[in-house]
Amino acid sequence: MKIEPRSTTPGWQLSFYRVIFESDTRAGRLFDAALLVAIVLSVLTVMLDSVRSITAQYGPYLRAVEWFFTLLFIVEYGLRLLVVRRPLAYAFSLLGIIDFLAIVPTVAALALASSRYLLVIRILRLLRVFRIFKLGRFMGEGEFIVAALKASRFKIFVFLTAVFTLATVVGALMYVVEGGQHGFTSIPKSIYWAIVTVTTVGYGDISPVSIAGQTLASLLMIMGYAIIAVPTGIVSAQMVLPNGAGAAPAYKQAACAHCQATGHRPEAAFCWQCGERLS
Amino acid sequence: MKIEPRSTTPGWQLSFYRVIFESDTRAGRLFDAALLVAIVLSVLTVMLDSVRSITAQYGPYLRAVEWFFTLLFIVEYGLRLLVVRRPLAYAFSLLGIIDFLAIVPTVAALALASSRYLLVIRILRLLRVFRIFKLGRFMGEGEFIVAALKASRFKIFVFLTAVFTLATVVGALMYVVEGGQHGFTSIPKSIYWAIVTVTTVGYGDISPVSIAGQTLASLLMIMGYAIIAVPTGIVSAQMVLPNGAGAAPAYKQAACAHCQATGHRPEAAFCWQCGERLS
Amino acid sequence: MKIEPRSTTPGWQLSFYRVIFESDTRAGRLFDAALLVAIVLSVLTVMLDSVRSITAQYGPYLRAVEWFFTLLFIVEYGLRLLVVRRPLAYAFSLLGIIDFLAIVPTVAALALASSRYLLVIRILRLLRVFRIFKLGRFMGEGEFIVAALKASRFKIFVFLTAVFTLATVVGALMYVVEGGQHGFTSIPKSIYWAIVTVTTVGYGDISPVSIAGQTLASLLMIMGYAIIAVPTGIVSAQMVLPNGAGAAPAYKQAACAHCQATGHRPEAAFCWQCGERLS
Amino acid sequence: MKIEPRSTTPGWQLSFYRVIFESDTRAGRLFDAALLVAIVLSVLTVMLDSVRSITAQYGPYLRAVEWFFTLLFIVEYGLRLLVVRRPLAYAFSLLGIIDFLAIVPTVAALALASSRYLLVIRILRLLRVFRIFKLGRFMGEGEFIVAALKASRFKIFVFLTAVFTLATVVGALMYVVEGGQHGFTSIPKSIYWAIVTVTTVGYGDISPVSIAGQTLASLLMIMGYAIIAVPTGIVSAQMVLPNGAGAAPAYKQAACAHCQATGHRPEAAFCWQCGERLS
Repeated sequence: MKIEPRSTTPGWQLSFYRVIFESDTRAGRLFDAALLVAIVLSVLTVMLDSVRSITAQYGPYLRAVEWFFTLLFIVEYGLRLLVVRRPLAYAFSLLGIIDFLAIVPTVAALALASSRYLLVIRILRLLRVFRIFKLGRFMGEGEFIVAALKASRFKIFVFLTAVFTLATVVGALMYVVEGGQHGFTSIPKSIYWAIVTVTTVGYGDISPVSIAGQTLASLLMIMGYAIIAVPTGIVSAQMVLPNGAGAAPAYKQAACAHCQATGHRPEAAFCWQCGERLS
Repeated sequence: MKIEPRSTTPGWQLSFYRVIFESDTRAGRLFDAALLVAIVLSVLTVMLDSVRSITAQYGPYLRAVEWFFTLLFIVEYGLRLLVVRRPLAYAFSLLGIIDFLAIVPTVAALALASSRYLLVIRILRLLRVFRIFKLGRFMGEGEFIVAALKASRFKIFVFLTAVFTLATVVGALMYVVEGGQHGFTSIPKSIYWAIVTVTTVGYGDISPVSIAGQTLASLLMIMGYAIIAVPTGIVSAQMVLPNGAGAAPAYKQAACAHCQATGHRPEAAFCWQCGERLS
Repeated sequence: MKIEPRSTTPGWQLSFYRVIFESDTRAGRLFDAALLVAIVLSVLTVMLDSVRSITAQYGPYLRAVEWFFTLLFIVEYGLRLLVVRRPLAYAFSLLGIIDFLAIVPTVAALALASSRYLLVIRILRLLRVFRIFKLGRFMGEGEFIVAALKASRFKIFVFLTAVFTLATVVGALMYVVEGGQHGFTSIPKSIYWAIVTVTTVGYGDISPVSIAGQTLASLLMIMGYAIIAVPTGIVSAQMVLPNGAGAAPAYKQAACAHCQATGHRPEAAFCWQCGERLS
Repeated sequence: MKIEPRSTTPGWQLSFYRVIFESDTRAGRLFDAALLVAIVLSVLTVMLDSVRSITAQYGPYLRAVEWFFTLLFIVEYGLRLLVVRRPLAYAFSLLGIIDFLAIVPTVAALALASSRYLLVIRILRLLRVFRIFKLGRFMGEGEFIVAALKASRFKIFVFLTAVFTLATVVGALMYVVEGGQHGFTSIPKSIYWAIVTVTTVGYGDISPVSIAGQTLASLLMIMGYAIIAVPTGIVSAQMVLPNGAGAAPAYKQAACAHCQATGHRPEAAFCWQCGERLS
């Protein structure tokens, strides 16, 4: 459901709507910039709150800053509900839920004892930065990337299934080859190692020691190195040929009516094989 | 050989064939989904079976689950043999062998003492998930990726040979440079290190310590970083220009003598723009 | 502001200008080559100066070499100021500031005690090597790369924001999952780990130990492995279709109403095939 | 200089030439296959020779095998000299030098004491495998890759210079930031670390510990992750548009004679801006 202003006649509601939800006025852009700063600062506060030495010394100050931003976000959330036409539609939209998550945990932290789990929910407010991608210039860019990924989603799914299967099989093999030692103590651990390896991350917390293991690992690395080309090729091809969306080939779908040859350039007027005019 | 139903007249055999081998009916899709779940669960069982602490406590339960899934797969395998026209053709097809491997090891595990080696064969049943790629949407996608890789196979082979040669030569050099120390204790170990490095995996289980070694390693890393571009470029080009298959140049160099149009397919006999015969 | 010679009539100023600022004469190319050698040698001197064992033994010699190059650069800087039309315009141009930075720190090092901080400023003179990219052949190449990156800058910004957000959220999750242990002692440390992981660098100085942590890490690695395709695809597409600059779609979606040709530049007003005005 | 047979009339010299230098006869292909096996086996012998435990036990056998292959290569080298038209031209060609290097070191090893340095020269005979790329199918593939890299060499050189400069500057910064500790003991070491990081290898033998260092490292990683897109894009673009070789843009060079607009599609017949027919 589209987000629309509650009132379309000039008044404080429409003015606030323009400032809060839109960004084609100077005030709207300023609001977006201020919001961005507030989000980043509040997330920085959460981060610092997790550093023991800092909490020990500046805990109360951090808490005060946290409350300040939370109050700001509460006021902002209230205003959003007030000026929008269907408040529930907004509240249950993706951005609305993220806005809500940005204020709940701090309030909850009053009732419950402050726990590590709440820290994570509080950091989710960072997702609000995606609001800025509504802004003119970025809109198209984000959409371009998302469209290319979306059009490639089946290919990427097939690819990831193949990678997972490869990691599982090689992981299990490695468990046998290294004889349950040198960190390869179970198949899940070995699969974790295989994923670390095939993605070329390579922590080195687990690494093969036997010659057979190192040989198998080398093969897996070479494969990982070569198959990285696959998702890259998929996305590149999608971006170069955005109209060739999905599984459609880059060339014309239709075959030549005369000789049944396929693979005509999209702009071809004549068949490359028999010279017949293409329909 | 194509897999075909034993009976083409309505009856239980055709009905079962449709459900088990095809996926254009509701029942067929449900069967595929159930099979997928059974495969994943049975593989998870094998994985858990390899974790010592879990086997110690839940061993008998895992074994029971294992038997349950194996019986399911035995029944399924029997049904496949019954409803298909040429059971041997099915049994010796790639998917048929995988189906067979999914049931044998557990039965074998009764006779033999349960060993680590059987665990790996049991995990091969994960390969059965590729059955789902028969399904509509994925079919084309998987084929697209496989076709691009297949068309690039000679290029990728040349590339991998070059990478292996590079790794061997630099590995041998490193063995000399680091003087057989810091993990570079033999040429095979040094080649293993070179592969770990050139693929940008970088475990760090072996890493150069001398200045000469670190310089050589830096050169190898930069080369690995630059040459990753090669397989990526190969696959991207293949996906963008799927008709430029194999070793043939992507497009003819020569322009049409009549209209000067370029970009003709290598095998084109006629200009795509003006229909003139190409020389 | 363009760099121009102070004097356009033949004389020592124009001759020196030609040699120092241009590279279309033999003398000019020799000067560029000599300058390149001087820059690289002086940077090597700075590097060696930071190796304790070398400074202990050859410190005075290194200092002498350093003074020699600095005097050279001072003379060169003076000459540049003398032969250029607007000395201030040159002095405040990017390359002019880099030229200035190449001589100041060593002079400053006389007054102040030699410190590590000055070493870094002295190494910035390496940036002077970009002067060589003025030279014929490289000019176009460098510009091509810069143009492709520039045209992709918004897409890359969107992409990097997404990567940073992903790293922050997964880092915070990891902090909770690993319970503040195994190196994940605070959210900033965990974010550092997430960046090390998602970029596939994988030092292994911090790595997950718990099963939940390793699972989460595996997901992050797979994501990092898949999303590397995005910047690669962006830059590839930009280089293949340089006219599809910026956020605009690479080609117009609409076909020509007259001849149905597609693939029009976004700003095209006329069909490239039949010359008909596009709607 | 081209390699040609000494004798063009039927006889033993032409027959041997056909077998040794060409691969369009059955015997020629068999010879190539046998040579490939001999090369790989002799390199494996060198590798095993470097493993202390194996040399201790099987040293004499390895030496015998080594002598066997060396004698084979000497005979082959002699035959090549005998059947070729200009023996010196062959001897000083790239492949000829590699063939020579494949036999010299073992002979040298008789005079000198067997040293680690000779092992490396002996392993260079692996380069002989590139002989197989003469063979039909691979020829075009290897040439395609080499051509794409060659056409991109200036772009890749500019790119690598930028990466080296980045690594040097960030390395020097890191040396200051980490205060000469945690492995960052000199600028060269820090540059080594920067290269390990920017190429996403990430050994972890040196890794930042301070918060400032980890932040700087994170930025470097993100940059390395993003700039890998550059060489990939360069090579992809080169492979997709092989006629757009070198610095040439993908679109037409010529501007419209009427309105001076550039960026016409290669196949465009009319200016996209003014609709004027393009010359």
